[in-house]
Amino acid sequence: MNALNKDPLVIFTPSGKRGHFPVGTPVLTAARQLGVDLDSVCGGRGICSKCQVTPGYGEFAKHGVTVEADALSGWNSVEERYKSKRGMIDGRRLGCQATIQSDVVIDVPPESQVHKQVVRKAATARDIIMDPATRLYYVEVAEPDMHEPSGDLERLGKALKEQWDIKEVYADLDVLRKLQPTLRKGEWKVTVALHRGNRDARTRVLDIWPGFYDEGIYGLAIDLGSTTIAAHLCDLRDGRVLASSGVMNPQIRFGEDLMSRVSYAMMNPGGDREMTAAVRTALNGLAQTISTEADIDPTRIMEAVFVCNPVMHHLLLGIDPVELGQAPFALATSDAMSLDAAELELKTLNANARVYILPLIAGHVGADCAAVALSEEPNKSDDMVLIVDVGTNAELLLGDKHKVLACSSPTGPAFEGAQISSGQRAAPGAIERVEIDAVTKEPRFKVIGCDLWSTDPGFDAATASTGITGICGSGIIEAVAEMRMAGLVDASGLVASAEQAGTPRMIAEGRTNSYLMHDASASGGPRIMVTQGDIRAIQLAKSALYAGARLLMDELNIDTVDRVVLAGAFGAHISTKHAMVLGMIPDAPLAKVSSAGNAAGTGARIALCSNAARTEIERVVREIHKVETAIEPRFQEHFVAANAIPHATAPFPELATIVTLPDVSFNAAGAVGADGRRRRR
Amino acid sequence: MNALNKDPLVIFTPSGKRGHFPVGTPVLTAARQLGVDLDSVCGGRGICSKCQVTPGYGEFAKHGVTVEADALSGWNSVEERYKSKRGMIDGRRLGCQATIQSDVVIDVPPESQVHKQVVRKAATARDIIMDPATRLYYVEVAEPDMHEPSGDLERLGKALKEQWDIKEVYADLDVLRKLQPTLRKGEWKVTVALHRGNRDARTRVLDIWPGFYDEGIYGLAIDLGSTTIAAHLCDLRDGRVLASSGVMNPQIRFGEDLMSRVSYAMMNPGGDREMTAAVRTALNGLAQTISTEADIDPTRIMEAVFVCNPVMHHLLLGIDPVELGQAPFALATSDAMSLDAAELELKTLNANARVYILPLIAGHVGADCAAVALSEEPNKSDDMVLIVDVGTNAELLLGDKHKVLACSSPTGPAFEGAQISSGQRAAPGAIERVEIDAVTKEPRFKVIGCDLWSTDPGFDAATASTGITGICGSGIIEAVAEMRMAGLVDASGLVASAEQAGTPRMIAEGRTNSYLMHDASASGGPRIMVTQGDIRAIQLAKSALYAGARLLMDELNIDTVDRVVLAGAFGAHISTKHAMVLGMIPDAPLAKVSSAGNAAGTGARIALCSNAARTEIERVVREIHKVETAIEPRFQEHFVAANAIPHATAPFPELATIVTLPDVSFNAAGAVGADGRRRRR
Repeated sequence: MNALNKDPLVIFTPSGKRGHFPVGTPVLTAARQLGVDLDSVCGGRGICSKCQVTPGYGEFAKHGVTVEADALSGWNSVEERYKSKRGMIDGRRLGCQATIQSDVVIDVPPESQVHKQVVRKAATARDIIMDPATRLYYVEVAEPDMHEPSGDLERLGKALKEQWDIKEVYADLDVLRKLQPTLRKGEWKVTVALHRGNRDARTRVLDIWPGFYDEGIYGLAIDLGSTTIAAHLCDLRDGRVLASSGVMNPQIRFGEDLMSRVSYAMMNPGGDREMTAAVRTALNGLAQTISTEADIDPTRIMEAVFVCNPVMHHLLLGIDPVELGQAPFALATSDAMSLDAAELELKTLNANARVYILPLIAGHVGADCAAVALSEEPNKSDDMVLIVDVGTNAELLLGDKHKVLACSSPTGPAFEGAQISSGQRAAPGAIERVEIDAVTKEPRFKVIGCDLWSTDPGFDAATASTGITGICGSGIIEAVAEMRMAGLVDASGLVASAEQAGTPRMIAEGRTNSYLMHDASASGGPRIMVTQGDIRAIQLAKSALYAGARLLMDELNIDTVDRVVLAGAFGAHISTKHAMVLGMIPDAPLAKVSSAGNAAGTGARIALCSNAARTEIERVVREIHKVETAIEPRFQEHFVAANAIPHATAPFPELATIVTLPDVSFNAAGAVGADGRRRRR
Repeated sequence: MNALNKDPLVIFTPSGKRGHFPVGTPVLTAARQLGVDLDSVCGGRGICSKCQVTPGYGEFAKHGVTVEADALSGWNSVEERYKSKRGMIDGRRLGCQATIQSDVVIDVPPESQVHKQVVRKAATARDIIMDPATRLYYVEVAEPDMHEPSGDLERLGKALKEQWDIKEVYADLDVLRKLQPTLRKGEWKVTVALHRGNRDARTRVLDIWPGFYDEGIYGLAIDLGSTTIAAHLCDLRDGRVLASSGVMNPQIRFGEDLMSRVSYAMMNPGGDREMTAAVRTALNGLAQTISTEADIDPTRIMEAVFVCNPVMHHLLLGIDPVELGQAPFALATSDAMSLDAAELELKTLNANARVYILPLIAGHVGADCAAVALSEEPNKSDDMVLIVDVGTNAELLLGDKHKVLACSSPTGPAFEGAQISSGQRAAPGAIERVEIDAVTKEPRFKVIGCDLWSTDPGFDAATASTGITGICGSGIIEAVAEMRMAGLVDASGLVASAEQAGTPRMIAEGRTNSYLMHDASASGGPRIMVTQGDIRAIQLAKSALYAGARLLMDELNIDTVDRVVLAGAFGAHISTKHAMVLGMIPDAPLAKVSSAGNAAGTGARIALCSNAARTEIERVVREIHKVETAIEPRFQEHFVAANAIPHATAPFPELATIVTLPDVSFNAAGAVGADGRRRRR
């Protein structure tokens, strides 16, 4: 015991915070007074069990204290009831029940911390701590009194101030309508979901439940792409992902890529409203699906965070995207937005659910790119990093801690398997890996859902249920690269004829040739081919991507990058070797090319779980320097120059073994030269 | 010219502000730098003409300057064009066009001041200055630039900050949707309606027009009563009332008084929603009617301020008023509210119109009473004032600058002519003034819409178009008081028979008698009578009113008040003499009884025109001490004691000449004694 202070010494680990407290002080009270991060939803009433702690006993030489066995008050009936009903790890105590009797060392386990670390990125060891805009609070409200005739809402506000130090609480009509019956049903004890966004001056009551409610509140992190809409359903209490799901963006029927949707809006009066209605309907369906999957009530979803490109952004909000289809590509608004889910007609969610949309970077560089920046943090990188996020458009970030540039490249949807003759979404049955023997020109491949190569014994049986239905984005990239390396395609992208290639797999179609990857027509299945048109589509897409990266590099006056991060589903599944053979991305050591998975989705999750992250990305986006590809003549130059498929031999030693044959060049009707112009016969 | 400063001296009147400015400085610029209150909507661009000033010439001994004829720059083409197109008083100049050439004295006329004085109350000389939450601003926005890809909204915000020093501007989806086409139509010059309420941290764009828009924006000040809904349509630029209109509250079909509507909600599932829908429909209709009357587009109505009693308040908001029907009469919320008109389904107004609702004082004392307090300011009174606002319920304020009390009395709608056999709304054809000859017992009366007494020559012709249709609230009070003074009613309220009264105007109806005021049955018109039931209804109403006032006086331990203010339509039309004969209000010198007109409506207008007033009334209401009549046994005592009609002779010397006959007392079947209990035969 401290000589200067007769009160017992309390030391909290891991924070190391310490102080003296009178005998009988609850551990939770001591923690709060010292600013120790110890959770509590019920405010110390022994209901929520969030404040579990582990007292240490014996000698703590480091802290200079010896803790007696009776340093805390005895195990009590509240703890016993909780443990018997819901279980509690041996040695744990409830911080609100155990009181301090003598010097003690108390450990706060990670799960009892408010600011749990939830989004942990292995590669960069980055921690995101829980700091959500929406949280639950249990509160006991004073009953009404005719002599002090304040409203029920005002007494709730007073209770929240007294019990949780939350000021300036307000409620919308929907909550006001159920406030009175709920307070009475809960006998003046209620749980409220409170929302305060990173830019809000006041705190809003989103929902209210009688008594202690602990069945969970949830949030959606939504990556709204032109082709697919992907969502994570997260628990807003601990950031845990309960379910992930996706649907096709139904706007595809109005146009496959962004510009064709903008055109649809320009050509058809009310066309933008049709597309807005379509995507909102899909979002409601997705929220329902993902809730069913996680077995939760969708009205418990209190927040949704959106990341999306500018056209998707404007169409989600119901803003005509016409200005985004023409220079100077003016956005209606670029800042982050906070609004009611009801304004977006997201009726599946809680009636008062809130929506946060990350800021847009420029007319062609969206909130999805901002989310990638939030997840990958190029602005904190010591080395020069190129981050490539390929959806239907490619968005690129290049920079380091000194400066970050951003641009967008119009790749089109070829990398997603669209506009490819046998293309399809990445789904069971789709060819995702391809190898072509350089000598025999025979292919082997893998399909999604099966680990065997097509030449392995048992492949047919293993794929019998799905069949072999098409080629997905990563499959087509490998197929084109392998065709190039097997001498079936020349540097200009021309496909060899059967005669030139010496294999009957080359099939003439009009003036061009195709490569037959798989023929299931005998059993009523498809003939899966790679056509000349497919090669051209991939060439256009990869040229756009490469040209965008080069443009940013020009801007920084550099010729190489230190590392490349491939984001998105594309980045997760692509073979970096094949991508580099195709010349999709600037050359970099293969070991320095990594996949970040769905970085945009991760950024959305981070923003869902953290107000601080919202504030940070809003600041970072204001500092990103935007480069507009559409008006930059050098973009066209780079684009044309990048049309060829350069590497019939591997660009790096790691790839040197792959290609052994001398390079080839074909000349045929309608062939396209390396300069991209149609040659005369 | 000042010896120490070579620049010309500029003196503004009436403010007296002065300073030296370089030759060529526009008068508007000088005014702004000195903080002189000189209006400008266009920001000095010669468009709005709000900055008109009157330069003075010659010697100004008081200011020590002589102003030469060329002290300002010459009359220019902008001024000439404005004057020829829209007119301008001779001698006026536009402050943004005229520049300073030498010492000058410049007067800012009242209409050029931003803070125009608009609601001036003759009695108390109170000034309200324009400080509305919603104002128009003309602004020139930078065009988009691909190299600085901020959104149009962000550039609008930047322009507002630079040109008007308005920070943190945001817009809802509705405005965002039309932002881009409007900016382009106006060639980057637009007028915006900006809203910032007294408790808002940020400024909201409510609407946007291309170019300079000056056709006006409007607000509604709405007194939402149980029986009638009255509205003033005000110009938000200068506070001017363009039109006033009213409709019956359609909720009457669910119950005449407040408690019967609460009962309806309790007894009928969904009944509250029916009443909410009914009043919202009526409000939309009223907004349309008043707009048509003022010949304005109702979508130019940007704000509405509501004052109403608690039950009307909750039903307007869609909150079930069930708790207001039983002790402890808990309000769902009591604070002032600021919300979107769309939340109240007020679709006739601008899509982004805002609503402000004054705070409620207690479960029975509403925002209408708060508005009366805002208008009449008992909290600033040196003497003890009783303010009586009679609608379907009576709300009372008693106090002075030291303390203010409030309560509500359940008078029922009799004072409004409802529940009266020949009762009707105050409308042309309604009897509003009554005299009964004490000797002959013959009546004479006046009807609304005609200045003649019914006994005057030409009365029949003058009223031929309206007919004589019934008795309004002020008429029935006069009729009952006159019947009492003419000896036709005794102190207990019993009506004399024909025999007792000696006049065939007394008509037996069952066991009771009625007084025939007017018989138009020969020509197919009504027989207008005052029945025993009518007397009872008035007795109950006036007893409740008197008991409430007495209860407040008890609370302050006083027996008299210094003055009485009668508010509401009731207060404006009632004869204070007759009211005092009936014993409706505590005795006070007749000269100290005044009418405040529609004080609740005035309070609503003040709140519509002034953010500062909103802040003030929110503070005042928190300080008002509420007295709950329903649980106060003394209220019942006062109520019973007040049932009699005390003054058959006048209570004050001023009234002494009215009554000359000795008092009478009747005894008849079913008569009710002074103690309010039914007598046995």
